[in-house]
Formats: sequence, structure tokens, C-alpha cells
Amino acid sequence: MNLRYVLHQVGNILKVEAALLSLPLVISIIYGESTVYAFLIPIALLLAIGFLLTYKKDIDRTIYAKEGFAVVGISWIFMSLFGTLPFVISQEIPNFINAFFETVSGFSTTGASILEDVESLSKGMLFWRSLTHWIGGMGILVFFLAIMPQTSARSMFIIKAESPGPKPEKIVSRVKHTARILYAIYFFLTLLEIILLLFKIPLFDSVVHAFGTAGTGGFSIWNQSIAHYNSVYVEVVITVFMILFGINFSLFYLMLIGDIKKALKSEELRAYLLIILVSIALITINTFSMFTSFGEALRYSSFQVGSIITTTGYSTTDFNLWPTFSQWILILLMFVGASAGSTGGGIKVSRIVIFFKQVFKEIRYLLHPRQISTITFEKKAVDESTLKGINSYFIAYMIILALATLLVSIEGHDLVSTFTSVIACFNNIGPGLGIVGPSGNYASFTDLSKLTLVFTMLAGRLEIFPILLLFSPRMWLKN
Amino acid sequence: MNLRYVLHQVGNILKVEAALLSLPLVISIIYGESTVYAFLIPIALLLAIGFLLTYKKDIDRTIYAKEGFAVVGISWIFMSLFGTLPFVISQEIPNFINAFFETVSGFSTTGASILEDVESLSKGMLFWRSLTHWIGGMGILVFFLAIMPQTSARSMFIIKAESPGPKPEKIVSRVKHTARILYAIYFFLTLLEIILLLFKIPLFDSVVHAFGTAGTGGFSIWNQSIAHYNSVYVEVVITVFMILFGINFSLFYLMLIGDIKKALKSEELRAYLLIILVSIALITINTFSMFTSFGEALRYSSFQVGSIITTTGYSTTDFNLWPTFSQWILILLMFVGASAGSTGGGIKVSRIVIFFKQVFKEIRYLLHPRQISTITFEKKAVDESTLKGINSYFIAYMIILALATLLVSIEGHDLVSTFTSVIACFNNIGPGLGIVGPSGNYASFTDLSKLTLVFTMLAGRLEIFPILLLFSPRMWLKN
Repeated sequence: MNLRYVLHQVGNILKVEAALLSLPLVISIIYGESTVYAFLIPIALLLAIGFLLTYKKDIDRTIYAKEGFAVVGISWIFMSLFGTLPFVISQEIPNFINAFFETVSGFSTTGASILEDVESLSKGMLFWRSLTHWIGGMGILVFFLAIMPQTSARSMFIIKAESPGPKPEKIVSRVKHTARILYAIYFFLTLLEIILLLFKIPLFDSVVHAFGTAGTGGFSIWNQSIAHYNSVYVEVVITVFMILFGINFSLFYLMLIGDIKKALKSEELRAYLLIILVSIALITINTFSMFTSFGEALRYSSFQVGSIITTTGYSTTDFNLWPTFSQWILILLMFVGASAGSTGGGIKVSRIVIFFKQVFKEIRYLLHPRQISTITFEKKAVDESTLKGINSYFIAYMIILALATLLVSIEGHDLVSTFTSVIACFNNIGPGLGIVGPSGNYASFTDLSKLTLVFTMLAGRLEIFPILLLFSPRMWLKN
Repeated sequence: MNLRYVLHQVGNILKVEAALLSLPLVISIIYGESTVYAFLIPIALLLAIGFLLTYKKDIDRTIYAKEGFAVVGISWIFMSLFGTLPFVISQEIPNFINAFFETVSGFSTTGASILEDVESLSKGMLFWRSLTHWIGGMGILVFFLAIMPQTSARSMFIIKAESPGPKPEKIVSRVKHTARILYAIYFFLTLLEIILLLFKIPLFDSVVHAFGTAGTGGFSIWNQSIAHYNSVYVEVVITVFMILFGINFSLFYLMLIGDIKKALKSEELRAYLLIILVSIALITINTFSMFTSFGEALRYSSFQVGSIITTTGYSTTDFNLWPTFSQWILILLMFVGASAGSTGGGIKVSRIVIFFKQVFKEIRYLLHPRQISTITFEKKAVDESTLKGINSYFIAYMIILALATLLVSIEGHDLVSTFTSVIACFNNIGPGLGIVGPSGNYASFTDLSKLTLVFTMLAGRLEIFPILLLFSPRMWLKN
């Protein structure tokens, strides 16, 4: 591995993080909070280490997939470690493991919290907590590549390692422009949501909840999450934007350049919307008797379906109380997740569609072993290496799910809480069922469980291999 | 599809089933039970239909994989439908759906029961119920091929469709000899277990419990299952034999012909035994405080681990009361299952080993995309089509698991009971957790759930595709 290059890039990311930390610092100053130093110290530290790592300019910039994974994996771990400091220094989350859990949960856009009373946090901390969602959603490396004056074509390895989906591709021919377009769309949609929310809720609330929606994170500033506002308007705005942020951003670009027809023909988009509609219909029917009217059942089920499939994790009701059928639909949606190239987590709709196609292909193969058939997706043939990648991802995914649940089960919470806590963290959702349901939190977990869940959150957000590769001794060999 | 050939073979199987039904008939006569006619009527019916379907001798015997799947899929469905009749005619299980559930559970070696009081059944019915395990364990088609005077080489398609594992192979060059060797070993091991059990329990008990062990089925004649005897000797004998029947039978053949060293070097065998030992150790430590001594914890945990990984499903204790950690190990073992080429169900140890190897291969690939690496298993390279088959199987497996649970969840049992009922049926185990735990049963489920579980039991035993292909319109096209 080209370790010098990797550390250089990690250094750059730490400098970016320092810059981003200045935002909650400003908030903290505006609100006259005493936690200003809790941002100043990490900023100074990040700048110092960042400049140290990037001091030498004439480094070998030849990189391969390997270095792409390493930059992403290592950056995310360091960015999370340093992102923890404001919480610990301010003593608003005094325990380091708790603060680390909360920070990784933020960056990975999980939204699982160890806070029993989020409302007791200062504005600065709340802002930082939600900002981590926004940064993590589109990715900090993508952000860095977007703001860099120059990028090499090889940086695509970095975008690929950080972006979700079976085969992340460039939107336009140049890597830098791809990164800029992604962030421009991301920024614009976030801004639009803030403006729409402003009609009903204060600026601060609008901004942090837009961060949580955009990154499909789910951190709120209220213990009751979005239910706090009890406003149909707010719920509708957030539902629509959650679903929007769960769409592949390259489709927005297609729409921007006028190719709306092509965008609407996307197989993944159609499958995604179909799954959402069917789920809302089934849950509305199933929960109908729990609500006072059909409209109310529709209101709560559509919000929850939008929140779960996009892996946001906001809630307006306690689905712990829903019937098993509706709960199982939500659990399945947790696995399905959002679209590739969106800010959402989970297995991704595109992979699910390809899974079904693989089964049909196997049936064709068994019936006619000599006929050659290929899988097409979005009107392109899915090549063998992509298919192998998808299958290996799925197998690794299931192995991690099984073993992480085993580790969390040691502490002896009930099976449903144990299993859904891992599902909710691994797929970057946040709330699960049982004690980690919408009205619960992760405070009662042991440090072993918290660290296991931290691992699954990072592995989930980065789609496993950037994190898994760090454990391979071959990764660390010199080229 | 060569439908004439398929129906001809189904006819043969129905005749074999008639012959097999004469065994419980004899038992019924010996015990002077009034249910003799409940066996005579189905026997007459099976012979009539069997001879009708096999009347024409000069049929086209050219078959391909397709016909192999069809013969197996259709035979198993018909054999189950007719096997239901004794229970219904005798009115010992008056409801047809219940009797069908019980019969499929028997043939598929699941051992899930809708009976709330199994002890109320007549001896003849109890014998038939357990005999279905024995027949289903090694497979009725394999049995038929073993007793046939002549078989074509193409019959291998049938063995492949009925035998579990990623790539069933012939033990010896001729198909008929392979089938005979398998059944000879099966018969001998069953007999050995009967003899050993006779030292402590009566002949009838020994025979039916040996059937349940050999087929890795799990039907007992006591409401308390093996706990009824409260005998360490009986438990040790059954534990050892459960584990033996979960081993690939080709290894026993290797041992028989003197190649013990080669047999003991089997990767799957080593992984299987390692999983068993580690699971027993972990559960013993975890449940230690629940028992009076270390020995007792070891006794119960080793029986349960042997019972679950081999997908037998006998129980000596209510593991519903065990800690979550132990329960999760049991759930994982339910998925893992026994060895390929054994009578056990589940995903199979060989596939699990190959799954891990695939993940390691993907890691190697990501680190060095240009290096070509292959997966070897049992010292042979795993070819691409086998690997695709394994992956398609796994994906189909997960899709069925998700959708079957959705159907069963409609009736609104708790999540744990719902999910583990599907796991326990799909992997051919029998007991799950919650209301379907060792002390519970499937009586309270709706017909929709029972039929869904019946589907999963058949799909689980036949490894999905022989059943799935029946739903493909292409399957029914003329060649």
C-alpha cells in the first residue's frame, strides 16, 4: 500500500473536518454557549495533525483500488475519533465510548443514540451532531474531491470506495466535476427542504432536521423525534425529502440536464417507488384499526415507510406497538434500504433487483443448461465481476450480521432488541424494535455491544469492504 | 419436459409408498388396533394409481436435469398428499391441512408437529409418522433407484435433485450402486442405533426414535420428546447418532473401503465437528448457572447442539428459557445445518465454508485485481457454475425466508415465534422459539401459515429449486 499517499489524504480530511467544526463553533458563539472551547480544542488539534500529515507535497500519487479503500476506511475512523472530542470535552457526553458511538452513528447516518435526553444538549452540540449526518450522507471524501482545485482520474477509486451501490460510476467524465455535481444537488435539495420547513418550524430546527433528512441520518433535537411537532405539514415535507434523498443522485442530474424521461425509466427508481407504495398500502390496511381514521393510518405509515426504507430513522409514532405483519415489513425495508448512489444505507434496491434476476437466471439455467443468458440492469448487461462483487458483499453482509448479533447477544437483552439493534445499526437506520425502538435508545448497552455496533455502522455505511480490508495483513504490505 | 417419463416415475414412487405403508399396517395388526383400514385404503389407492401411471412400458427415457427436478418435486408432493390419508381416514388427525402439515413435516425430516398430545395416537400412526422421517432422510427416489434392477446413467439427474449439498456426486461410477451403498450405510447405522437403544428402552420406542434420528427428523412418541426417558445413556446414544447422520455419507463409504485417513481430512467434516465443539463449549459456559453442575450443563447443551445443527429437533430441555446468547447460537446452527450428502437440512456446512472462502477471495481480488485466484474445497477447485449455483441458492433461500415470514406474520404471533417458526420449518428442524419452542407446537397457526410452512419444509428439504421450478411455465413446455 502507498501508505504515504493514504496518510496525506487522511491529513487533508482532518483539515476539512477542522473547517466543518467551525460551523457548530459559530452556532455556539451565536447562542452564547459556554462550550466554545469544546470546538476550539479539536479544531486546533485537527489542524496541527492535518498539516503535519500533509506537509510533504512531493509524494507518489499512484494509487489503485487498494489505496482508495484505505483512504476511505482510515479517514472515516479518524474523522469519527476526532469528531468525538467536542462531546467529551464539553462533558455533554462525558463517556468516550458513548460519544464515539454517537459520532459514528452521526457520520454513518445511522442516527442511533445513546442519549436518554437529547434535549439537554447545547445548541452547538446539537448542530454538530446533525452536521455529521450531512457530511456522512454524501461522503467527506467526495466533498474533499469537490472542493479540491485539481484531482487525478485515479481519485475515482476513492469515490468508488465511499459511494454506496454495486458499481458507483462517474456522472460526468471528470472525477472532480462528478463530485461537484453530487454536492451541488445535495446542497440545493437540503436548502430547499430548509426553506419549506421554515414555514412551520424555527430556523435552527429546520436546518438540523434537513441535515438529518438529507444524510438519511435521523438524529432529531427532540426526544420524541418528529412527533414533537405533531404537524402534518412538517411530516409531509420530511417524508417527501426522505424519499428524494433515497434516490440515486445521478437521476437528479439526468433531470437537470433535461433527460427526465430517461430518469423516470430507471429500473431501480421504479422498484424503489413500487416497494414504497406497496409497503405503505399494506401497513395502512394492517394498522388501520389502531388509528382514528384511514387518513391518520396513511399519515403514520407513509412517514414510517419513508423513514425506514431510506434508512433515515425519524419516527412519528412508536411502531413497537404495531402488529407483527407491519413490523416485519419494516424489518424487510431495513434490509432493502435506499437506492445506490443515494445517501441512504441498507443493501440497496439495485442489489435486491439483481438478486431476483439472479434467481430467475438460475431457474433458466437449470431448465436449459446450454442456453447462455445474461442479467441486464438499467438496460446494461451486468458483468461477471460486478455480479461476484454483489454476491460477495451479500455473503459478507450476512456473516457480519450473524456474528455481530452474537456479540451483542452476550449481554442478554431479549432476542428482538438484540437482533434489531444490529439490523438498525448495520443498515444505518437508528431505531429498531424492543428497547431500541423509536422511544428507546442504546444507553443500556455494554461497551462491547456499543463497539460492535460502531463497527457495523461503519461497515454498513462504507459497504463492508473498506472496513474489512483494514483487517487484512496484505493491505498493509508495501506495493 | 418429458411429462410421460416424469409421471411414470411418480407412479413408481407411489407404488413404493404403498409397499412402505404395509409396515405400519403390520404394526397396526400386531397391536390389534382398529386403524388397519386407514392403511389398507391408501395402499389400494396408491397401487391403483401407481399401476395406471406405469402401465405403458415403452416410454422415451431421455431425461435431462429438468426432468430430474420434476420427478423429485412432483413425487414429493404426491407422496405427501397420499401419506396424509392414514391420519385423516383414521380420524386421528381429522383436519386435512393438519394431517398434510404433519406428513410433509415427516417426509421433509422437519419434525414440526400440529399435535398437542402426540401420546394419544395409535401405534400404527406413530410408526408411520416416524417412518416418513426415515424415508425422507435419504430420499425416496434414491431408495427407488437402489431397489430397481436397472437404472440408466441419466438417473443421476434424479439423485442430484433429491440429495442435499452444493454438488451431489456419485460415490461409485454406477448410479444404482451409489444409491445402494447410500441406503446400505443408512440401514446399517439405523439398525446399530436401534440395538444400542434397546439396552434402555422398548423395541417400538427404539425403532421410531432411530427413524427420527436417522432421518434427522425429530418426531418423538412422547410429548416431552427425549426428555421423557430422562436417561443419560439414551441421550448420549441419540446425540452421537444425530451427529453421525449429519455427516456426508460418502465419508462413511471411504471409511468402509479403508480410506479412513482421507475421510478424516475432509474439510467439511472438520468444520462441522469444530462448529459443534465450539457451540457446545459456549452454550455450556453460558447456561452453566442454570444447571446444578458443569456435567449437567454439558449434557443438555451437547444434546441440543447435536439436535439443532443436524436439524433433527429432538429436545431434552426447553431452550426457550436459555439466555439470548445461547439462543442465538442455536438460531445460527439452524441456518448452518448439517453436511452435504447427509440426511440433515439447513444451508449445509460445505456451503458455509465456501461462503467464507468467497469473502476472502473477494478481499484478495480487491487488493490485487489482476491476480487470478480460485476457491478450493476438499482439495478441488470449485468451478464457476457450482459457485453460481451456491450463490443463487443462498439468494433464493433468503428471499423465501423473508416472504414466508411475511405470510406467517399476518396472523400476528410475536416476532420471535413468527420468525423462528419459518426458520425451523425451512431448515427442517422442527422446534423454534416462543410458541413453537420445544414444549410448544404449530396447532394454533392458521391454514395460510401452515401451507406456507409446508412450502418451506419441502423447499428446504429439496434445496429450493426442485420446488421453485414447478412454478416456472417453461418447466411445463414440451421439449
